[in-house]
Amino acid sequence: MRRLTLLDSTLREGEQFSGAFFTHEQRVNIARLLDAVGVPYIEVPSPISSPETTQAIHELCSLNLRSRIIAHVRCVEADVQAALDTPVHGVNLFYGTSNELRSYSHGRPIERIITDSVPLIRKIREAGRYVRFSAEDAFRSDIVDLLMVFDAVVEAGVQRIGLPDSVGIATPRQVERLIRICAERYPDVGIEFHAHNDTGCAIANTIAAFEGGADCLDVTVLGIGERNGIASLSGIISQLYIHYPEQLNEYDLTRLMELDQYVASCLNTAIPFNMPITSAYAFAHKAGVHTKAVLSNPRAYEILDPGDFGLSRSITVGSRITGRYAVG
Amino acid sequence: MRRLTLLDSTLREGEQFSGAFFTHEQRVNIARLLDAVGVPYIEVPSPISSPETTQAIHELCSLNLRSRIIAHVRCVEADVQAALDTPVHGVNLFYGTSNELRSYSHGRPIERIITDSVPLIRKIREAGRYVRFSAEDAFRSDIVDLLMVFDAVVEAGVQRIGLPDSVGIATPRQVERLIRICAERYPDVGIEFHAHNDTGCAIANTIAAFEGGADCLDVTVLGIGERNGIASLSGIISQLYIHYPEQLNEYDLTRLMELDQYVASCLNTAIPFNMPITSAYAFAHKAGVHTKAVLSNPRAYEILDPGDFGLSRSITVGSRITGRYAVG
Ligand SMILES: O=C(O)CCC(=O)C(=O)O
Ligand SMILES: O=C(O)CCC(=O)C(=O)O
Ligand SMILES: [Cu+2]
Ligand SMILES: [Cu+2]
Repeated sequence: MRRLTLLDSTLREGEQFSGAFFTHEQRVNIARLLDAVGVPYIEVPSPISSPETTQAIHELCSLNLRSRIIAHVRCVEADVQAALDTPVHGVNLFYGTSNELRSYSHGRPIERIITDSVPLIRKIREAGRYVRFSAEDAFRSDIVDLLMVFDAVVEAGVQRIGLPDSVGIATPRQVERLIRICAERYPDVGIEFHAHNDTGCAIANTIAAFEGGADCLDVTVLGIGERNGIASLSGIISQLYIHYPEQLNEYDLTRLMELDQYVASCLNTAIPFNMPITSAYAFAHKAGVHTKAVLSNPRAYEILDPGDFGLSRSITVGSRITGRYAVG
Repeated sequence: MRRLTLLDSTLREGEQFSGAFFTHEQRVNIARLLDAVGVPYIEVPSPISSPETTQAIHELCSLNLRSRIIAHVRCVEADVQAALDTPVHGVNLFYGTSNELRSYSHGRPIERIITDSVPLIRKIREAGRYVRFSAEDAFRSDIVDLLMVFDAVVEAGVQRIGLPDSVGIATPRQVERLIRICAERYPDVGIEFHAHNDTGCAIANTIAAFEGGADCLDVTVLGIGERNGIASLSGIISQLYIHYPEQLNEYDLTRLMELDQYVASCLNTAIPFNMPITSAYAFAHKAGVHTKAVLSNPRAYEILDPGDFGLSRSITVGSRITGRYAVG
């Protein structure tokens, strides 16, 4: 069995969500809850962004969580140095490789991306830390550009490469194909994937990446992130529960609801009603034909057992929700 | 080009959402807005459910919308007769074919499903109406059972068969495969698909169905439905916009936001922040590296043009959203 790792980026990608402004205390609580659920990696912003960020990262590292803290850092010497000056487990580097980002964001050619990145990767490795390099906007990048960059960073010693769908344009089929090309070409490094939800397929794309050979999937709590966000932790857990349950052995699924509710409260909102598992209605049955069957056997209309998440179902009788039924 | 039809089931599946209780006036307004957006089919509950439902259906039919009204009806003589006593364009029949639904819901063998359905299909055809037959829980059904039922209903004259993923268990790959089998076996009828979102892949599965050969896709406004719902209209439109734009020629995309906002207001909630296109933040850019690039050229981080939906983008400057930028 290929071992799958989840990386939660609520404290980095999630902070890029227009509705999110976490206090320091909230960041600590979120990290503790992620740890309690059992998420292996927690991504944090670059310490160079502000003294408060640096301070927060030091404190998150000092919590001694089982979750490992990874800083998300531009391929800039000072940024990397600032990360290495903190006790983070590792560094997630990123650099836009698509024509769009090369034209409208940083304006640099592929050769420059390589010459900027390679020495920084060596530096991080020499410091004994974990390093990943991500080709931002991988799914609008020319495949020759993409593989030239990956060839160079793998040669330089990265432990993982990342392929984010930064604009939410990819389809499950495209994701699986491109990830598989990379998995075959770079058998000695891990592969990370990250999916924006602009066209509503972040969860499907993320699972397709695993099926193509990725070993690390990015999520955030409730799927918050730039624009309308990325794959949600609850969504990915619902997929793994059904299709790859052995990947959830080390998770405590009964803490998921608390985590989702806590982050929703930080955002001053409710958990979206479309959220798998943690929606207020995820285990609510309303139509007569549904409630009758569910009272006979919940498997009629439930593929996830609410009890496994410490939750219970509710059944509407006579057009009103009249009771919370114990898990049967 | 295969012509794709959308069926909106907000007034049927959506009313099965635990958070939804539409007034009669709201139903009329929703139907008018669906018509304004350009959705070809509107599904309504079975008139047999109550005199109010029958009354509402008569009124919806008398609006003379371009959208056609289809009643969702059990394979029961009285239910079909009640539908034919209204001026609906057609009837969507359904019958559970999975072992789970046959055991815990209606308790009937495959032969009985066929003998119940065939005469009703003939009856509806003789009345000159459109008729579709759907195998509820198709993706947990034995393929022999499923095809035996479809063989019989196609022979009896249905114009379309439906394959709902009633419990949200399918993957895009499975959906595409099973739909393709049916598209090849039944070249003379249409194929409808309907995806629940229990594992977060309703939109991806629905698009996979189109790619496998379906010609009618079920949606609801905001994705509301039993449990955590089905594919959202906005999600499917975002997919078509990117991958199959020719399918949107007859839609008025500038009315989509009004529709989503109206239904959200009926539910006393906001549009979920993860909704493609109509999320309050769908075109909001916050991280510095994003805002800088988007100011240079929105295509850097936007694959959907907000102007096409009558919307504009917002850009956060200095950690606060400081302005709504005109579409450039
Ligand atoms: O570093 C990464 O892989 C992801 C960066 C990011 O948020 C994106 O490209 O959308
Ligand atoms: O009639 C259909 O195809 C769909 C019925 C339904 O809502 C479902 O099976 O989830
Ligand atoms: Cu991102
Ligand atoms: Cu349904």
